[in-house]
Amino acid sequence: MATIGDIFTAVEKGEADVAVIPIENSTEGSVRETLDSFVESDLKIVAQIHMEITHCLISRSPLEKIERVYSKDQALGQCRHWLQRHLPHAQLVDAASTSRAVQIARDDPVAAAVASELAADHYGVPVVARNIQDRVDNTTRFFVLGRKPAGPVGGGKDMTSFLVSLGDEAAAHSGALLRMLMPLAERGINLSKIESRPSKKRPWDYYFFLDVTGHFDDDAMKAALKELKQFCPLVKWLGSYPASTQL
Amino acid sequence: MATIGDIFTAVEKGEADVAVIPIENSTEGSVRETLDSFVESDLKIVAQIHMEITHCLISRSPLEKIERVYSKDQALGQCRHWLQRHLPHAQLVDAASTSRAVQIARDDPVAAAVASELAADHYGVPVVARNIQDRVDNTTRFFVLGRKPAGPVGGGKDMTSFLVSLGDEAAAHSGALLRMLMPLAERGINLSKIESRPSKKRPWDYYFFLDVTGHFDDDAMKAALKELKQFCPLVKWLGSYPASTQL
Repeated sequence: MATIGDIFTAVEKGEADVAVIPIENSTEGSVRETLDSFVESDLKIVAQIHMEITHCLISRSPLEKIERVYSKDQALGQCRHWLQRHLPHAQLVDAASTSRAVQIARDDPVAAAVASELAADHYGVPVVARNIQDRVDNTTRFFVLGRKPAGPVGGGKDMTSFLVSLGDEAAAHSGALLRMLMPLAERGINLSKIESRPSKKRPWDYYFFLDVTGHFDDDAMKAALKELKQFCPLVKWLGSYPASTQL
Repeated sequence: MATIGDIFTAVEKGEADVAVIPIENSTEGSVRETLDSFVESDLKIVAQIHMEITHCLISRSPLEKIERVYSKDQALGQCRHWLQRHLPHAQLVDAASTSRAVQIARDDPVAAAVASELAADHYGVPVVARNIQDRVDNTTRFFVLGRKPAGPVGGGKDMTSFLVSLGDEAAAHSGALLRMLMPLAERGINLSKIESRPSKKRPWDYYFFLDVTGHFDDDAMKAALKELKQFCPLVKWLGSYPASTQL
């Protein structure tokens, strides 16, 4: 698929049963395109996967002939220092996907791609350098998306993601953000991540993406979300899933 | 200056007295390069500015001849829909700055830049289209940075920014994030923004950037930060500044 938005659409239309999408990288942070896609989509997160990511520089030419490096912005960001050191004069071009970048490198001798060795093999383009990511422990967290929610694992091993909009409440007084967290704190629901994204509706109006412990079916979670809905114009459950999956 | 990091360095070295840097855009969200630069820098935020931002498409060629569009990733993001509609086949290239992008468009006839009309005039490159940002109310929040902190305005009209690391505390139990906010909530210090960035030291270790009401010299603020320091390995004050400056 060309874009993350296209992946959401494929599952929504039933062209795919499930999809695996990147949500966050340990070096570069959140994948904004994924966060923004959740606003419009009714797909549910059913699992998470943590995977170590290695990148290759892929090109038909040696380093000194390369003028442009193509990849996803996230992948370029994960290799920023390596690229600055080895290709200081190359232009970095944001491609729709890493596989699209390899196709460009196949067709243009002054181009290189940052992508996986698998993609290099698939398109038959040589690997110029391996393991070019800036950190050896470079890890990406992926979500598995489906059309139906996942049941609880139980035993405190579930996580839940949801998004909240504070609406005009936030403009009215800046205590709204802390007030939003209280219904969780009071019920012993732990917050493992909070991320904000502009709503793109009004300046300085945000969606907050929260990852918390517990399952949507837990009584405490139901009560917390019910309380949130009393003063937040939007409380959208994105899914509940087992906390731990390491590949 | 070529990069945001270079701007920090110029003020640190005394080559500039103050600097104006973008921190957040109403369409595209936080400027990650700015957040990351605060981790290493001892500069202080002394003021904030909100400014409406308009972008132009700048090129020596008409639309149908343009193959590549250069700009900062933030500026390309603010014009994403316009570019998809009018230049669906053009490659988007991340330039070090919008002025660098205009220089490239001056030298390469198949290139265009997304930048201000001022930059187009300065480098003598024609404006092909005006007001190409996706939202008319596209606004960027800037910080003014200096080497010395700013005194209080008083009357509840100050804001304070600081960054916090939870360190191994966060790994130990996911309640750490809410616990970090309690010392603020209990003292009536309101949180207007929270943003996380990977520490780049260990996977899933974050710096949290907080904007709160009040000045560093306020007794409540001093007490809250002192309490935070008891369990957070890093609590770094980034500056206190007047809440409102609209240009």
